Amino acid sequence: MNFKIRRAAKEDCKDISRMIMDLAIYEKMPDQVKISHEELERDGFCQNPLFECLVAEVPEEHKSNEGFTVIGYALYFYTYSTWKGRAVYLEDLYVMPEFRGTGQLRIGTALLSKVAEIGKKKQCVRLQLSVLNWNTPSRDFYAAKGAQDLTVTEGWHAIRFDGQNLDNLANEAPKD
Amino acid sequence: MNFKIRRAAKEDCKDISRMIMDLAIYEKMPDQVKISHEELERDGFCQNPLFECLVAEVPEEHKSNEGFTVIGYALYFYTYSTWKGRAVYLEDLYVMPEFRGTGQLRIGTALLSKVAEIGKKKQCVRLQLSVLNWNTPSRDFYAAKGAQDLTVTEGWHAIRFDGQNLDNLANEAPKD
Repeated sequence: MNFKIRRAAKEDCKDISRMIMDLAIYEKMPDQVKISHEELERDGFCQNPLFECLVAEVPEEHKSNEGFTVIGYALYFYTYSTWKGRAVYLEDLYVMPEFRGTGQLRIGTALLSKVAEIGKKKQCVRLQLSVLNWNTPSRDFYAAKGAQDLTVTEGWHAIRFDGQNLDNLANEAPKD
Repeated sequence: MNFKIRRAAKEDCKDISRMIMDLAIYEKMPDQVKISHEELERDGFCQNPLFECLVAEVPEEHKSNEGFTVIGYALYFYTYSTWKGRAVYLEDLYVMPEFRGTGQLRIGTALLSKVAEIGKKKQCVRLQLSVLNWNTPSRDFYAAKGAQDLTVTEGWHAIRFDGQNLDNLANEAPKD
């Protein structure tokens, strides 16, 4: 099947928002999604965007069962390593189930590799992402492409402050 | 002991670079550091900086055994959650051992809480960071402040492409 990978436009935010929810359902945390398509439009398509995004699109004649032509996305931004310099972080990679290749994940690979290419053009020396430990298809997919699981090999854990504990922390800050 | 937390200036990059190496030695990966103070100056103190940094400074009369007055730093940047929006990511938090509080980590807390405060002022709803599983003092420190270990509670693993596998991936990208 034909498909095209292109930079997301502001008009794609409704499609992206729909797929963000699909991905959160797959990850078993749909109640965590608090971002609307309006917020995506504001945050990603302004003077200093907080993220960049690619979408995968199929021709009208191959649209999804529900009538969608934008059927996958990769949302990413730039980070910094004090050891290596600029890096790219892939926050989300998603392809609608009915468009996933049988074992090859062709559209997923196209999105992922395009992010790698864009990152390298910007002198990024790493592409990083996070995956859930029970998500074996994704873990196997990244491993097959040569990625390292840093939690396994080096022991890195992800730590988060949010809600009340973030407020408490901010309130402890020394006054200028 | 008196200390001051302030925004890092370009002139602090030699001190920051020295402490980046100290931290990498503590994390048992000193050979991973490829960034010089010149690169920190270029990347952090330009038109669109790739990171922000705070430093902790003590008065001349309390300088370190080796004569340093800049004795800690917190380096961070902004990321994006497709569930919650803007977030702040703390790449490094470091205080020289001779300036660490006995059990209280007062300078470390001041740096961390200041990053939280700055993040909240920028509408960040999360502060995230990574810690090594054997680094019990740091893990206990963050846990005591209310942070969640997402690797333990939700099962998130950190995945990385770099070097040859990143090149290979980029080379697979579909041509426009």
